[in-house]
Formats: sequence, structure tokens, C-alpha cells
Amino acid sequence: MSVPELTSEEITLLLADHPAWALAREGKAITRTFQFKDFSQAWGFMSRVALLAEAQDHHPEWFNVYAKVEVTLTTHDAGQTGGLSQRDVTLAQAIDALA
Amino acid sequence: MSVPELTSEEITLLLADHPAWALAREGKAITRTFQFKDFSQAWGFMSRVALLAEAQDHHPEWFNVYAKVEVTLTTHDAGQTGGLSQRDVTLAQAIDALA
Repeated sequence: MSVPELTSEEITLLLADHPAWALAREGKAITRTFQFKDFSQAWGFMSRVALLAEAQDHHPEWFNVYAKVEVTLTTHDAGQTGGLSQRDVTLAQAIDALA
Repeated sequence: MSVPELTSEEITLLLADHPAWALAREGKAITRTFQFKDFSQAWGFMSRVALLAEAQDHHPEWFNVYAKVEVTLTTHDAGQTGGLSQRDVTLAQAIDALA
């Protein structure tokens, strides 16, 4: 079942409210890079995000190398070919609250 | 301080011993993709790899989306510009033992 995509006005608001995130994939996703002191700190952060994601049943796409974590949020079920939805806003807010 | 790079003979042996891994980045890295049932299983695997990595002080570059985990191993300190070293062999062996 398809999830409603955010409107362009909602995306503008999302970026205004969460300035650390940037649009990616031609507006179909948002991304944020986190830099920690070492792997232990990065992994601690990822563990907290993993719990959030599982609780929200909405999961990030993410890349980690040592102390760096690149998080990308998108909703595969949004619109025709995936895009941003309210699920991404909710998860971005929760991640920002951790960081 | 630079870590010795594997010789081409050692790389051939590595791939023969660990056939699930493939060369990547023009021979400077190896990669393996793991597919699980869901995020919970994928995360469980990643948590075990994280403990191995921290214990070995050698960390993967990895990408996760839901039930899929793509692991890339390389040694940034190997040779002049990074490459494969015995550290990658040791970590690949330990990861294979988990999977």
C-alpha cells in the first residue's frame, strides 16, 4: 500500500526544521552525516538509532566507516517509486534528538 | 606506520579460502553482501561484527538497508594508498565464522 509523499511545502518545512539534513536522490531522500570520536561512539549512536527504527518500523539506509555514520532516510512505499513521507520526518526528529 | 600489503599470491589464497568474498576497488578491498530475514536479524549480525571489529581494532566499511548488509574490508594503512592486509583476512575469517 502506498504511503502519501510529502508535498514540496512539507519538504521545505522539514529542511527548515532540521537544517542538518540535506535533500538527496533528486528530492526522494534526506541525508545527514554524523562524525564521532571513534567507532565505539559511532556504534553507540547506531545502536540507539536501530532501536528507534525498529520501534517505528521504519529503517534507515546507512553507511559506517569507523567514526563516521552517513544516514539516508527515504520511504520505499511512498508515491510511485519511493520518496519522502511523514515517516522520514518522524525518524529524522528522533535521530536529531539523540545527536 | 604502514602495514604490509598482501601479495597477489596471498590475495588469490584469500579468495580461494573465502569464496563468498569478492575483490573490489581495483583489488584494494574485498566485499561480501549478507541477506537476512529482517532488520532484527541483520542488526544482530552487525552487533556481533562490531564486537569482533573492536576487539581486533580493525573495522569494516559497511552499508545496511533493512535486511541487507554489505561489508567491505580494506586496510587504510596498507601500502602507499591503502589495500588488503592480513588484518582483512583475519576479520573476514571471523565474520565468515558468524554467518
